[in-house]
Amino acid sequence: MPVGTAATVKALTQEALEELGASIILANTYHLYLRPGHELIRRLGGLHSFMSWRGTILTDSGGYQVFSLADLRKIADEGVRFRSHLDGSEHLLTPEKAAEIQLALGSDIAMVLDECIETPAPRNIAETALKRTSEWARRARNHFLERATRNGNPPQWQFGIVQGATYADLRRESARQLLELDFAGYAVGGLAVGEPHELTCEMTAEVTALLPKDRPRYLMGVGQPEQLADYVAQGIDMMDCVLPTRAARHACLYTHEGRVLIKNSRYASDQRPIDAQCTCSVCRRYTRAYLRHLFAAGEITAAILATHHNVHFYLDTMRQIREAISFGQLSNFASELRARYVAGPA
Amino acid sequence: MPVGTAATVKALTQEALEELGASIILANTYHLYLRPGHELIRRLGGLHSFMSWRGTILTDSGGYQVFSLADLRKIADEGVRFRSHLDGSEHLLTPEKAAEIQLALGSDIAMVLDECIETPAPRNIAETALKRTSEWARRARNHFLERATRNGNPPQWQFGIVQGATYADLRRESARQLLELDFAGYAVGGLAVGEPHELTCEMTAEVTALLPKDRPRYLMGVGQPEQLADYVAQGIDMMDCVLPTRAARHACLYTHEGRVLIKNSRYASDQRPIDAQCTCSVCRRYTRAYLRHLFAAGEITAAILATHHNVHFYLDTMRQIREAISFGQLSNFASELRARYVAGPA
Repeated sequence: MPVGTAATVKALTQEALEELGASIILANTYHLYLRPGHELIRRLGGLHSFMSWRGTILTDSGGYQVFSLADLRKIADEGVRFRSHLDGSEHLLTPEKAAEIQLALGSDIAMVLDECIETPAPRNIAETALKRTSEWARRARNHFLERATRNGNPPQWQFGIVQGATYADLRRESARQLLELDFAGYAVGGLAVGEPHELTCEMTAEVTALLPKDRPRYLMGVGQPEQLADYVAQGIDMMDCVLPTRAARHACLYTHEGRVLIKNSRYASDQRPIDAQCTCSVCRRYTRAYLRHLFAAGEITAAILATHHNVHFYLDTMRQIREAISFGQLSNFASELRARYVAGPA
Repeated sequence: MPVGTAATVKALTQEALEELGASIILANTYHLYLRPGHELIRRLGGLHSFMSWRGTILTDSGGYQVFSLADLRKIADEGVRFRSHLDGSEHLLTPEKAAEIQLALGSDIAMVLDECIETPAPRNIAETALKRTSEWARRARNHFLERATRNGNPPQWQFGIVQGATYADLRRESARQLLELDFAGYAVGGLAVGEPHELTCEMTAEVTALLPKDRPRYLMGVGQPEQLADYVAQGIDMMDCVLPTRAARHACLYTHEGRVLIKNSRYASDQRPIDAQCTCSVCRRYTRAYLRHLFAAGEITAAILATHHNVHFYLDTMRQIREAISFGQLSNFASELRARYVAGPA
């Protein structure tokens, strides 16, 4: 899922997302709650109408951003109290409030509020956070179902989030507790935050082994292009990451031969496309030399073209993963992906 | 002509320019000479190939930017010596050099180097600058024709630039001197730089009265949308201006009812398109509320959508002007344009 923090995937229009074949994007509850405000978006007909996006929208709970505020937030059983990074105003985010905001936003998939902790975490911290996460999930689920019952059909799919840091038994316990709440899908949170890639995969596998096969499984906030197939191999169906869009704005382009740091002077007169194997509209039309020039000149067009290419690269990698699965070749494809990135750029 | 300073119209891809129906754009010799360098662009096959633009390209001479450097430049009969705004390096721009750079860039229309002076200018300053401009035009024309003769067919159309500040007799003298050099087209420079609009029109009319009807006439660096028809009424065929693109990035949108400063809180829940009468892809899809939000959040997408709309508005105004001419209604249309902008935004 491309990340559209403030109801826009940075540097891409919705037409561009459609051309790229993006079927689902993620939007951030924290950002939209603060600006322009969820009540405004509700009045304007919800996020789909507000941003004119017919595809699917997943909203996070706002928790991850709030917990990243560090000095600006305070956690209690009730919820998390925080100050806006925009104007310092004080807010209280509870499991019920996070669910309510997402109902107002009208996303298709809503995430429950979870407690995000720093890793590596001592076991007692992880246990406390897990207990709170499970309790919050129960409250969020109750609030959601009460609203859903009141209004007829469920307006959204609500996903639970498995926590438990890097403790396999806590991960399993978290999954079991969430399963009792019968969510429409399940996410794995709090991973890929600095621990080794192998450990991320191991923890993911512990969780996916317990999750029902007929519900989506979502690994949050990943990943590097060469890791995507590994996560799918652990049973993951959905991922989100700012990497393709953020790296693009910092002139880092993904290719079938590895990363191209396009500002490098070696590309100044390089008439090849960003990626000779890529079929995106940028690679069909523009040269590395032109991209390099646009970045050197600080042009907005640089961000537009680079983002378009990188998002295409990620979505195309996922298409290749699906194809590999259909041919029973996922494991081979995962090795191939890793090899490209060890070898480095052309 | 949309302005594509550094071989890109800011925030628009070439695909977007094609969708907008832009048939010609302007690129800046000064900027491209300094970065990425005209010799690099020559090696890469010229500007058309470099930026992948099949439409027409007009390049200015670089003079206007160099003269704007003020403290960083020194003028003599030979040419103008200046320091780069990028790295302070010293350069000499002569009429021959300006022609040569544009040959390297491979634009379709090249402008001669002229002396740009501040206005209002005392008559003796205007006379001296005019004399130098005419001499430079002669040298530029000779250099160009010599190169053209050497290589067969003319590789470009070269345009002369009429100067003379706000002195009608100097304007006429400048035009007559340029006509002797038999340029492919003629520009009117040094106007719309602070003098009243009526005076701009008056000076333009003095010049166009002398110019051949079968050669393009180009008024440089204009204008406000409500002024475009007035300039055409004075016999002008071509104009360039950074206004539609620059204003867009500063959240100023042009509409059939006047300017909309989209950051204004009055648009926060405005579900109308930017301009109800506009047929551009932005007005067909997005609301004022969404545009306002994107600007408030500082999103790149704001610049993309706003620029798209404003460039469409300018090109559409020119289409309406051509239509008005074909119906003998140019004067009425010019009045209508002015009225809209006096009335102000909806």
